Amino acid sequence: MSQTIAKLYPLANRVVIKRAESAVRSKGGIVLPEDKKTRLLRGTVVAVGPGQVNNEGERMPLSVKVGDDVILPDYGGTKLEIDEQKDLYVFREPDILARIAQ
Amino acid sequence: MSQTIAKLYPLANRVVIKRAESAVRSKGGIVLPEDKKTRLLRGTVVAVGPGQVNNEGERMPLSVKVGDDVILPDYGGTKLEIDEQKDLYVFREPDILARIAQ
Amino acid sequence: MSQTIAKLYPLANRVVIKRAESAVRSKGGIVLPEDKKTRLLRGTVVAVGPGQVNNEGERMPLSVKVGDDVILPDYGGTKLEIDEQKDLYVFREPDILARIAQ
Amino acid sequence: MSQTIAKLYPLANRVVIKRAESAVRSKGGIVLPEDKKTRLLRGTVVAVGPGQVNNEGERMPLSVKVGDDVILPDYGGTKLEIDEQKDLYVFREPDILARIAQ
Amino acid sequence: MSQTIAKLYPLANRVVIKRAESAVRSKGGIVLPEDKKTRLLRGTVVAVGPGQVNNEGERMPLSVKVGDDVILPDYGGTKLEIDEQKDLYVFREPDILARIAQ
Amino acid sequence: MSQTIAKLYPLANRVVIKRAESAVRSKGGIVLPEDKKTRLLRGTVVAVGPGQVNNEGERMPLSVKVGDDVILPDYGGTKLEIDEQKDLYVFREPDILARIAQ
Amino acid sequence: MSQTIAKLYPLANRVVIKRAESAVRSKGGIVLPEDKKTRLLRGTVVAVGPGQVNNEGERMPLSVKVGDDVILPDYGGTKLEIDEQKDLYVFREPDILARIAQ
Repeated sequence: MSQTIAKLYPLANRVVIKRAESAVRSKGGIVLPEDKKTRLLRGTVVAVGPGQVNNEGERMPLSVKVGDDVILPDYGGTKLEIDEQKDLYVFREPDILARIAQ
Repeated sequence: MSQTIAKLYPLANRVVIKRAESAVRSKGGIVLPEDKKTRLLRGTVVAVGPGQVNNEGERMPLSVKVGDDVILPDYGGTKLEIDEQKDLYVFREPDILARIAQ
Repeated sequence: MSQTIAKLYPLANRVVIKRAESAVRSKGGIVLPEDKKTRLLRGTVVAVGPGQVNNEGERMPLSVKVGDDVILPDYGGTKLEIDEQKDLYVFREPDILARIAQ
Repeated sequence: MSQTIAKLYPLANRVVIKRAESAVRSKGGIVLPEDKKTRLLRGTVVAVGPGQVNNEGERMPLSVKVGDDVILPDYGGTKLEIDEQKDLYVFREPDILARIAQ
Repeated sequence: MSQTIAKLYPLANRVVIKRAESAVRSKGGIVLPEDKKTRLLRGTVVAVGPGQVNNEGERMPLSVKVGDDVILPDYGGTKLEIDEQKDLYVFREPDILARIAQ
Repeated sequence: MSQTIAKLYPLANRVVIKRAESAVRSKGGIVLPEDKKTRLLRGTVVAVGPGQVNNEGERMPLSVKVGDDVILPDYGGTKLEIDEQKDLYVFREPDILARIAQ
Repeated sequence: MSQTIAKLYPLANRVVIKRAESAVRSKGGIVLPEDKKTRLLRGTVVAVGPGQVNNEGERMPLSVKVGDDVILPDYGGTKLEIDEQKDLYVFREPDILARIAQ
């Protein structure tokens, strides 16, 4: 992880995701091509928020951690404009569909 | 279940479903043809999430398990693009209509 | 009840209803013709779910049981495509309007 | 009350209302003409449900009872098609505007 | 208050309001003309409901009482068709904007 | 504050605001011109409600008091038609953006 | 921070943000150009509210403080019209995407 990414601290239940650069065949054989027609995206978690605060004032911990590979929906993400690494997005953790085992 | 499917871990109350490939007559006689006009879908659960977290931080367990045959609605599912097995979908467990006894 | 219907297990607060085949005059004199213009439907409960789970993780029991005759709204139901018995629908229990005494 | 009406058991917080047949001058002088332009309706409660279930699983009792004369809104009611008595409607109790003293 | 009005019992948190007949200058100098363009209305409370029931089954008392002069919004009210007194409306108490000291 | 304003008692969490008559430079240098294009408004609190009632029946106190200068959004306010003082509005307290120190 | 900004007290969970004047390369290398096409904004927190009040009447503390650099969404902010410092906005704290380490 670069120095740039480490400086981002998402709020609440937000997660910063580095999208996969191209379609790759994972060790397990899952292929997620990322052309325009692909509705699902794949990426790696590079920063996680401390969790949403519930009514009692406690943080609800997230179920993904830095380094997790995840499957993303095609909505809900917001692109971060950063010069060195192009594909950083902010998602709400409840919008993430699944983790992929490494 | 293949190696590929086992590597998917749905988040929260999501379920990964392998859709039935074609209309089949079950042992009990239920037929669910899957042409374009069919609003209902049938499939098999291949992965389940750990359950939604309630306000007290506890997981609410799902009522379907891996291997269950289920009847699906025609909304709410998201297709997973995987090369080897074509018909994997992610659903929210509350969107699943019913289980079918095996 | 046929073998086919007994194999369906609705999830949460869903109910499987077998719609009445035609307008019939009940013993009490209630007639519910089921032509296209009729907004209300009548049917018999053939399967019930275990109830919705509340925030404490407890099942909220349903107020209809298998065998009950019920009055249905014209929305909210989803048709099940089954070859032997044509008129099976899935409804949420809160959408059912009333029971009719047998 | 006729035998027909007594056989209906509304679910949850629903109420079966027999609409007033025409505009009448009540003892107290209230007149509610029921022509097409009238937005408000008047009727008599002929059956009540057991009440909505709250999160603790308890029934919330209704505030109207069989025999009450009520003022109805022009929305939310569903007509019951019954041959002998034409003007039976199902309403949610929270949609009823007011009771009229007898 | 007339005999007619006293016979109305609003349900839940509803309030029956007798609208002011015309624009009047109050003792304090407040003038609320009631022509078509006026968005705000003024009236007097003539009947109040017992209050909304909360989840514990307790009534939440209203903050207006019979005899209060109130300022009304231009939405949310339902006109009651009564022959002797023309300007009776049913409002939800939370829709009332303010009381005016007498 | 005039006698007229003192007679208004807003309900629940409502606040009566007297809008600033024109753009003024405050002691701190803040200028809020109030031409048509200005989306934000400035005003002074002249009456506050007792607070919203929560589920336990307790009043939730407001965070503004009579005399506070506040910044208003351009939505949510309702104009009061009063002859002597033209610019009285009713706002919900949660819609008020900020207080300005005097 | 100037005298002007210090006089603003946002209500509830609102935050006053001074937007970055132009695209700058941060020490960590993050560049956020602020032309028309940029969906994300960057700014500095200059005032924070006391936090939203929960149902028990307690303030829920904010997770940003004065001086924090934050990444903003392109919705939800309201511009404050102030003559000396042009780029002050009010945001709800839950709308802020992330903090950037200084």
